[in-house]
Amino acid sequence: MKFCTFQKPDGSSKAGWLYNDAWVVDMHAVSQGQLPRTMSAFLDTADENLQLARQINAELNLELSLTNLTNRASHVELPEGISDLDGVRLLPPLPRPASIRDFYAFEAHVKTARRHRGLDMVPQWYDFPVFYFTNHQAVAGPEDEIAVPPGCTWFDYELEMACVIGRHGKDIPSGAAHDFIFGYTIMNDWSARDLQREEMKVGLGPAKGKDFATSLGPWIVTPDELAPYQDGQRYNLAMTASVNGELLSEGNYRDIYFTFEQMIERASAGVSLYPGDVIGSGTVGTGCILELGTDVHRWLIPGDLVELSITGLGTLRNVVKGC
Amino acid sequence: MKFCTFQKPDGSSKAGWLYNDAWVVDMHAVSQGQLPRTMSAFLDTADENLQLARQINAELNLELSLTNLTNRASHVELPEGISDLDGVRLLPPLPRPASIRDFYAFEAHVKTARRHRGLDMVPQWYDFPVFYFTNHQAVAGPEDEIAVPPGCTWFDYELEMACVIGRHGKDIPSGAAHDFIFGYTIMNDWSARDLQREEMKVGLGPAKGKDFATSLGPWIVTPDELAPYQDGQRYNLAMTASVNGELLSEGNYRDIYFTFEQMIERASAGVSLYPGDVIGSGTVGTGCILELGTDVHRWLIPGDLVELSITGLGTLRNVVKGC
Repeated sequence: MKFCTFQKPDGSSKAGWLYNDAWVVDMHAVSQGQLPRTMSAFLDTADENLQLARQINAELNLELSLTNLTNRASHVELPEGISDLDGVRLLPPLPRPASIRDFYAFEAHVKTARRHRGLDMVPQWYDFPVFYFTNHQAVAGPEDEIAVPPGCTWFDYELEMACVIGRHGKDIPSGAAHDFIFGYTIMNDWSARDLQREEMKVGLGPAKGKDFATSLGPWIVTPDELAPYQDGQRYNLAMTASVNGELLSEGNYRDIYFTFEQMIERASAGVSLYPGDVIGSGTVGTGCILELGTDVHRWLIPGDLVELSITGLGTLRNVVKGC
Repeated sequence: MKFCTFQKPDGSSKAGWLYNDAWVVDMHAVSQGQLPRTMSAFLDTADENLQLARQINAELNLELSLTNLTNRASHVELPEGISDLDGVRLLPPLPRPASIRDFYAFEAHVKTARRHRGLDMVPQWYDFPVFYFTNHQAVAGPEDEIAVPPGCTWFDYELEMACVIGRHGKDIPSGAAHDFIFGYTIMNDWSARDLQREEMKVGLGPAKGKDFATSLGPWIVTPDELAPYQDGQRYNLAMTASVNGELLSEGNYRDIYFTFEQMIERASAGVSLYPGDVIGSGTVGTGCILELGTDVHRWLIPGDLVELSITGLGTLRNVVKGC
């Protein structure tokens, strides 16, 4: 299933899921209040809520087939709680993550990013996956414009995949970690490279280089939908980024060095993970301008359209705006 | 006023304030439900809630004087919603911070910590206050034991002061930042120095070196209570840390290079701050074993009692336990 949060024309926000890639289902409405109103509340008891959502979705399938809703030209009235995808505004699928950890798990990105700073690869990088906490209170959705932060002229995107935690756990071994993943989504870890470069000389962070916006979306896809792409411990998922229609980044999730399961083991060592925690993969190789070099593409400027796509997860589009 | 969160003998958690340093007041009960049940909810509309709390506290003062409660030996029955401080367990004053940013604002600490790693002072440190986000979901209170995280043998405390944000704001100039501070508390940024040293070689963080626990408490003190210690743009507040009764750290908040107001300006540049955000000062000079050196004191081990004191803010005590 593909879970999303959307705003109806009347301004109200609803949590729900995508139906047949053409409609959105308000989970609270179609469940007669048995499912909650927000994705955060849904994730708090994700296992039982997901079971109920699947059951309702199957019933919906039957009901909608009967009323011939799959013929979109027929203009029949939509049942209560179901809207046309084109008629709503998609918000971040999880507008209030409990936290965001961003890892650094693609070798090619780390090697190239360090080489650009005149640094060799650090041997410790191979010992364990490293991460930092970023601002979970500045999440943007697939239809939000992203403001260049004050003082930034080197504005960049980062093409990442993220997983969303659906269960509380601590000291989770990687072998058991898969069950803690509720789903996957695309993440754009917007980066102010000039601010980041200055602050990191002091030896902490990044913080101001990253804290103004992280895009998530367009929806959260449950792991069963990625099963066809399974490739050993990883998935074979093409990852691309384009700016104003020009393809700049091309990678594959299969090339990740540390899996999400290993990241979860690391994050949960001595620490509780909670439903609604988001874990970013780090940037895939070639997945940002910093890595490509400004001879390949200038830094982003207001008006630029940035589109990140991952097989099975959709496309996350954002337009850059001035601050 | 001194705001706190406490657990009654029946296991229920209450938010409230300290009365005459001897009793705790359950704000929801004494306000007949006008004030909320948690500090997070209180902070969401802090300005009006604080006004009501002050008014109720003044009325309480009168009521309690009349019933002679100030004579603790008299064993009169306490009014509804008021408990003996000794009869409750203090929880973190804000059990669920919206976020925690930890700054690095004391020059002496930065200089010494870098010298220990063979590094000179970075000139950029003087340009703006830098911070990192730490784990806001791992907060401990003044009566919690702190577990040494897995794999850590270099376990350390850090003596810091923190402020709690009480208003939403963005792009807040330092000159206006004082009004966004709801109060101050003591913070112990527990540190696993061996984990921190390894992960930071990769150039991110700290994360695992700090993510297992941050102590806050014993209460949040409103700025008016620190007015007697005002010293220009800073406060004259002695800051000390002792381990098992041995005084190890002695500093003063007056020596901070960047004020909380400057930190707020930095944190809020291009980014929203929210009620319940916590901002740590960074460690005061001499305020951790890393800075003192293990010839002065060994790393912490289970059973150690760590006591941090700041003038006007009280003492934050924690005992270290095994993982």
